[in-house]
Amino acid sequence: MPATRTEHDLLGEKEVPADAYWGVHTERARENFPITGVPVGRYPFLVRGLAFVKEAAALANRDLGLLDERRAAAISAACRELRAGALHDQFVVDLIQGGAGTSTNMNANEVIANRALEILGRTKGDYAHVHPNDHVNLSQSTNDVYPTAADVAFVEAAAGLRSAMAELEQAFAAKAQEFQGVVKMGRTQLQDAVPMTLGQEFRAFAVMLGEDRARLDESAALLYEINLGATAIGTGLNAPARYAETACAHLAELTGRPFTTAHDLVEATQDPGAFVHLSGVLKRIAIKLSKTCNDLRLLSSGPRAGLGEITLPPRQAGSSIMPGKVNPVIPEMVSQVAYTVIADDLAVTLAAESGQLQLNAFEPVIVRALAQSFTHLTAACRTLASACVAGIEAHPEVMAARVENSIGLATALNPLLGYRATTEVAREALVTGCTVPDVVRRRGLLTDAQLDEALSLQRLVPRPPPAA
Amino acid sequence: MPATRTEHDLLGEKEVPADAYWGVHTERARENFPITGVPVGRYPFLVRGLAFVKEAAALANRDLGLLDERRAAAISAACRELRAGALHDQFVVDLIQGGAGTSTNMNANEVIANRALEILGRTKGDYAHVHPNDHVNLSQSTNDVYPTAADVAFVEAAAGLRSAMAELEQAFAAKAQEFQGVVKMGRTQLQDAVPMTLGQEFRAFAVMLGEDRARLDESAALLYEINLGATAIGTGLNAPARYAETACAHLAELTGRPFTTAHDLVEATQDPGAFVHLSGVLKRIAIKLSKTCNDLRLLSSGPRAGLGEITLPPRQAGSSIMPGKVNPVIPEMVSQVAYTVIADDLAVTLAAESGQLQLNAFEPVIVRALAQSFTHLTAACRTLASACVAGIEAHPEVMAARVENSIGLATALNPLLGYRATTEVAREALVTGCTVPDVVRRRGLLTDAQLDEALSLQRLVPRPPPAA
Amino acid sequence: MPATRTEHDLLGEKEVPADAYWGVHTERARENFPITGVPVGRYPFLVRGLAFVKEAAALANRDLGLLDERRAAAISAACRELRAGALHDQFVVDLIQGGAGTSTNMNANEVIANRALEILGRTKGDYAHVHPNDHVNLSQSTNDVYPTAADVAFVEAAAGLRSAMAELEQAFAAKAQEFQGVVKMGRTQLQDAVPMTLGQEFRAFAVMLGEDRARLDESAALLYEINLGATAIGTGLNAPARYAETACAHLAELTGRPFTTAHDLVEATQDPGAFVHLSGVLKRIAIKLSKTCNDLRLLSSGPRAGLGEITLPPRQAGSSIMPGKVNPVIPEMVSQVAYTVIADDLAVTLAAESGQLQLNAFEPVIVRALAQSFTHLTAACRTLASACVAGIEAHPEVMAARVENSIGLATALNPLLGYRATTEVAREALVTGCTVPDVVRRRGLLTDAQLDEALSLQRLVPRPPPAA
Amino acid sequence: MPATRTEHDLLGEKEVPADAYWGVHTERARENFPITGVPVGRYPFLVRGLAFVKEAAALANRDLGLLDERRAAAISAACRELRAGALHDQFVVDLIQGGAGTSTNMNANEVIANRALEILGRTKGDYAHVHPNDHVNLSQSTNDVYPTAADVAFVEAAAGLRSAMAELEQAFAAKAQEFQGVVKMGRTQLQDAVPMTLGQEFRAFAVMLGEDRARLDESAALLYEINLGATAIGTGLNAPARYAETACAHLAELTGRPFTTAHDLVEATQDPGAFVHLSGVLKRIAIKLSKTCNDLRLLSSGPRAGLGEITLPPRQAGSSIMPGKVNPVIPEMVSQVAYTVIADDLAVTLAAESGQLQLNAFEPVIVRALAQSFTHLTAACRTLASACVAGIEAHPEVMAARVENSIGLATALNPLLGYRATTEVAREALVTGCTVPDVVRRRGLLTDAQLDEALSLQRLVPRPPPAA
Repeated sequence: MPATRTEHDLLGEKEVPADAYWGVHTERARENFPITGVPVGRYPFLVRGLAFVKEAAALANRDLGLLDERRAAAISAACRELRAGALHDQFVVDLIQGGAGTSTNMNANEVIANRALEILGRTKGDYAHVHPNDHVNLSQSTNDVYPTAADVAFVEAAAGLRSAMAELEQAFAAKAQEFQGVVKMGRTQLQDAVPMTLGQEFRAFAVMLGEDRARLDESAALLYEINLGATAIGTGLNAPARYAETACAHLAELTGRPFTTAHDLVEATQDPGAFVHLSGVLKRIAIKLSKTCNDLRLLSSGPRAGLGEITLPPRQAGSSIMPGKVNPVIPEMVSQVAYTVIADDLAVTLAAESGQLQLNAFEPVIVRALAQSFTHLTAACRTLASACVAGIEAHPEVMAARVENSIGLATALNPLLGYRATTEVAREALVTGCTVPDVVRRRGLLTDAQLDEALSLQRLVPRPPPAA
Repeated sequence: MPATRTEHDLLGEKEVPADAYWGVHTERARENFPITGVPVGRYPFLVRGLAFVKEAAALANRDLGLLDERRAAAISAACRELRAGALHDQFVVDLIQGGAGTSTNMNANEVIANRALEILGRTKGDYAHVHPNDHVNLSQSTNDVYPTAADVAFVEAAAGLRSAMAELEQAFAAKAQEFQGVVKMGRTQLQDAVPMTLGQEFRAFAVMLGEDRARLDESAALLYEINLGATAIGTGLNAPARYAETACAHLAELTGRPFTTAHDLVEATQDPGAFVHLSGVLKRIAIKLSKTCNDLRLLSSGPRAGLGEITLPPRQAGSSIMPGKVNPVIPEMVSQVAYTVIADDLAVTLAAESGQLQLNAFEPVIVRALAQSFTHLTAACRTLASACVAGIEAHPEVMAARVENSIGLATALNPLLGYRATTEVAREALVTGCTVPDVVRRRGLLTDAQLDEALSLQRLVPRPPPAA
Repeated sequence: MPATRTEHDLLGEKEVPADAYWGVHTERARENFPITGVPVGRYPFLVRGLAFVKEAAALANRDLGLLDERRAAAISAACRELRAGALHDQFVVDLIQGGAGTSTNMNANEVIANRALEILGRTKGDYAHVHPNDHVNLSQSTNDVYPTAADVAFVEAAAGLRSAMAELEQAFAAKAQEFQGVVKMGRTQLQDAVPMTLGQEFRAFAVMLGEDRARLDESAALLYEINLGATAIGTGLNAPARYAETACAHLAELTGRPFTTAHDLVEATQDPGAFVHLSGVLKRIAIKLSKTCNDLRLLSSGPRAGLGEITLPPRQAGSSIMPGKVNPVIPEMVSQVAYTVIADDLAVTLAAESGQLQLNAFEPVIVRALAQSFTHLTAACRTLASACVAGIEAHPEVMAARVENSIGLATALNPLLGYRATTEVAREALVTGCTVPDVVRRRGLLTDAQLDEALSLQRLVPRPPPAA
Repeated sequence: MPATRTEHDLLGEKEVPADAYWGVHTERARENFPITGVPVGRYPFLVRGLAFVKEAAALANRDLGLLDERRAAAISAACRELRAGALHDQFVVDLIQGGAGTSTNMNANEVIANRALEILGRTKGDYAHVHPNDHVNLSQSTNDVYPTAADVAFVEAAAGLRSAMAELEQAFAAKAQEFQGVVKMGRTQLQDAVPMTLGQEFRAFAVMLGEDRARLDESAALLYEINLGATAIGTGLNAPARYAETACAHLAELTGRPFTTAHDLVEATQDPGAFVHLSGVLKRIAIKLSKTCNDLRLLSSGPRAGLGEITLPPRQAGSSIMPGKVNPVIPEMVSQVAYTVIADDLAVTLAAESGQLQLNAFEPVIVRALAQSFTHLTAACRTLASACVAGIEAHPEVMAARVENSIGLATALNPLLGYRATTEVAREALVTGCTVPDVVRRRGLLTDAQLDEALSLQRLVPRPPPAA
């Protein structure tokens, strides 16, 4: 039987493992929430977010004379250790938890208090010297700490995703460059449309990612507005004068990010709008990634009974029964990631809509959804870039043959022949199996010179503008 | 200025149009809910559902001695007129309305009362003779009438959808029969897999619809359990003894459907579970319809740069700029219908989850969502059957060539050569551009007789079992 | 039998009503898409969007010498009439349509051509003089016209919503001012927390709306980037040099909005990202409106067995069976609107994710979803402001009594007594039914002066910062 | 550096850890899918599902003479060990994976082959003796094994959830019994309605669960139809005659469940309809659980500024800043679980709609969503039953006082006074603050005896029917 120490709360006494940095509040939460099996500590940015906020608060309390230098220094030191990666395994509360994040905040208070006690040469649980609530949580409430920590965490997570998206954008841009001279049929509604280049097709993928990155930046900037200092409901009860500004300034300095205090703290404390917005942007990114991957799967369909315009690099055997089959496993994985991000956005929506009065009790599931989405999307972008896009090969001859043979060339004759006559040309080509130029010649509608000019590659596929 | 008559409610007096069959409660609701512009009367099955319930209630009240024969007969007659299609334009309250359906119920009470007054030779508004609440709504509450009317309405709507699905299933089955000898490559993950027939492919579409129809029947059967007699919260307050059974029996007789009274009326009054279930089944139908239509678009992609295995009947010019282009507009429409059905299921989910205590205040948006989904799906199935599936043509020669040339034939050699050796055959075929039999022959792995046997059509594409 | 005229397309000849401004393409679309019964013309901003784009294109074609002055002037005049409200009943194609908006574009082409013909003294159908495709649609494709028209339409719709939100924000702000001295218990997780003012509670509602308005502005600004000039797939085939810039400049001038041409037209033509973003913002607005309305319903619950802190203005009788009952029908309506907006966002998501290659074939359902959401939200905000918020009354005495009696006062003693001792005070108060000051006095923990200071209203409910 | 062994696939050679039971295919999948960090082996029912299917297949292959007794016995033994809990840590592929489950199937093939090799006294990797593909996967494809294994897994998961729901239902039913004499006001739309008992309120919670359980049973029964024997696309290529029936019979015997082979294997192989249906039912369960928990939170709101009709058992301190505060953490947790289940249903929807032609490539994300939802719901039901419902206490005096004082009593007078007169009574009571009987007496509308009869508890709150 493992050694324990006894702790106490409003429900009475309770044993916690002797070597645990967490305490009674965490211990009860472990029992209360046996749901996903995935603890808060699994996401390093969440622990770091908490550690940043707790240190900023301690420094503010010290500056304002509420916390002595010695305790403040010990708390700071403990927080810096957490940020460096220590003790993440002590954040044991399930990501899905009741209590609006209270258990996560209590968990942080307890771990930091116990580590600070050790730093001060005390033993764990000796809370008279550093108390989880009276010292680590001083001037704070879960209701300002938890959302602020999430803000800090997701600023970091957004930076990671941004970088992965840039990597993927670059991979597509490189292929766009490589394929800029490859002419092919463009398709709308899966029907042959008019010619374009494979480079244009891939450049669109890159541009889309770049735009999404801009949206991500805008949305992540909303996270800089924090409610630290609001305490329980935004009235700042129990936080001293100038606490909110001071703590915010420390947080900005510690993180190097331009955090500011929300103008109306009552509103800020109940409103998860920034998370909703961010989740909406992640959904947008997911939608476009999935669309892009669907296109990669379409273009590489085959090898012989599909479009077969490109080949994705083989990553693994594709079938347990069909030898030699290779599947587009990376794009398939990315689309599935997209589905989970879209689904997680719905969880965010449901939770946000369910807020009541001065607080949203369901922020933990919002935090979980965003943590998952950021992590999954980041991994998916990196994998897609390195394990798929970088190795894509084109089959120019397949594509060129389709252009020559296409009905879509008729469109280019529209300005010369008018919509009605061109329609007849197109129909005849389709029915007879002839090419469009053949039909035009046979009908004597245009001279060879006119045809050549109208169907010149230069006219059909204008060179795109230089990259922005 | 139009003539009006004066009516009265708890807020005081109010003018209503003199020729309106609706009264003061409806008039206020019109002003309060200027949202979608689509009134309840737009959906005939909703009006009929209300009329069935109101007549059943009147007959029960008559049987139990609460309502005299003359009033009961007039109310019955008015209800029968509504069921026959009369006065639907008098159901003017917006589908999105606060009040848990009270305004719809009040609207029905008022229209029926005023029509009954006319039948009795009285003028509209002469409520001493037939009163919307004291007579038409006798022994009833919105909270039992409204969900019961919706049950009746959706039983009818489900029958309509069922029939449209059967029509579509039949159209696919006919094509499956027509295409049963057409051999083609099956595809998994858009990669060439192993051979099958186009008939098998279309038969799967038919079978899928048949299964969904079975699910729809099961789910619609849940609607037969009603809460009529529950009155306000399920305790039956103000409904006389034996009212619930009597009214239910009348409803069953009038509709010819096996309605029964829920065992626990408190539960039944607050629980929109049957609507949630039904919406889930409509979503399932939508998912599969969309998948089917996506397949039709894939298989008909081209005409020259796509798969081109089938051609959908042209329905309209496909482009304002590309003459001769024809698009798969019907399948595209069906997929969009599917998206709205999936979306409406989310509205149902949100509304259902938001119920509180003894009632779900948001049933009107549930009713709207289901009414839309039924109507859209029914129209989509019928249109898909008649305007698309029935006219599909196959291109057997395109498909046959792909089978002969396919790498997927290697799979059939797996039992003879083993997974590893067959993988090497497949790779060589792919790299060299040869056919699989060529590689096998060159490598001397099998005799011609073995090859012929292994790759015989009979072995590759066994005849499917007879239709169930 | 109504008179008809004969028109012609790639499928052959077809009769259209003689007095219809639409033509053969529209007529076929009417038959192909009998789904929602709601035509494009139901939404004036959609028709106006099309008319703006068609006029801008005509002027550009004129400037570039492709269209003679006379035809250009007639087309312009027809477009201006449409913008002024004429002929919206001629936009008869169902909102849900296959063909990526082709039918809507064709409908616009035909209506404008026929109206222009009349202006030029010709009869409808005399297309040699003004042809729907060769003149009205000159240099255009559905694939650039349709999304650009939607951009223009939603810029207008967003302005309308913005104004309705401002009205609602103002209504909440006025109440916040009125209620600024009303002290009450704040609640977190539906449990009594610490005191605040009703003014703070209402101010939060106003602030939330203001923030959402800012998000709406940002998102609507993304609509200014258009793809006009892209033609079929973004390569600009069949549009002359300088067409894109010229048409964009005309559009900007006609609308008074800063439209610009997208840098990469291939990307812009296939990417509905701006609509996805906008829909996400509408969802965010919906979430917060619903949360706000849920709060109004909670705070006004009762009249005697609920919280009863405020009364909403009665709008209609609340029950067909419970006389005197008044329900919060306006907030209930708004929440249902919110559910439909959230649902419509899912339809947008599904449609956007399903785009393939150079186009998203499902833009019509995206347009429908946004058109609905804008219209519903705008109506909901206006109704909520005028029919509910403006008439809210407070019950200060109910709220004051709850503050005095609350356990939540204990929180204010936390800095003086520490977390553990205060917990004991709170528990004793709860168990014994005493007030918190009574327990403190009995335990002799603080002097009366200390208590008075700690529990002074000034300390408990600090005056909020002045409005931003 | 850890010891490795060399394996080989179509991409060439690759090192795998020497002590790993998995092989080259799994190793590549580990690298390809670094997404969620949660491997398949985390869900025991998934591993067991695979083991059941693999054993059934081996026995069928043995019966049909394709697999010798010795190998079959070794494979069977390995599968039985897996079912008993062994080697789950060897199922290391991420739940989100491309390839339609191929990697999971390959992982199973490799683990079983290597364990079978050990059982036969061979070393891992000695595949000439037991080969993952040629022996363990004999007559099988991922495309029949993977969905069938999921069917088996979810049958087990459904049984677990069913039992947890029954436990929760029992907890509610016990409270319903305990509270059957406690009279209170019923509420509709958060407004006071008419009286009921707290027992009726809790009984509705129990009944709701019972109905959902019936729906779960129906839906889980759809899982009994399997596609084992379909191989790659449903044509059964490479599976010998009578294999499907034989394998199915073994599976039924091994599991004790009535599995049957689908009639149309082509359809069954591409259609995840049973999973969609099941997910829809889980969503329905989630919706109602959340509604129930919302009610518990409402009824226990307070302790002094809320409804305060019941008290939930305290589970942990509710606030880091508000001493003595206790929050409804268990219901809050359950609602969050509900949000994730609803969200996961959307992931299922998206994945199901994205299937193409002969296969749904996205089944892994469907399997993940269902595995999560089952696990979360099961844990949530058990926790809610034991940690919350079982300890709920009622406050009858609070509830009784509200009934006596309620306006809602007026409803009971409706049959005596008529809707209009009763409305006036109710309004007067509300405005004057009097009780309803006082107003009636003052107005002389009824005698005391009439009043007593009309408002007798027996009439107001009829005894509910006995439990079904």
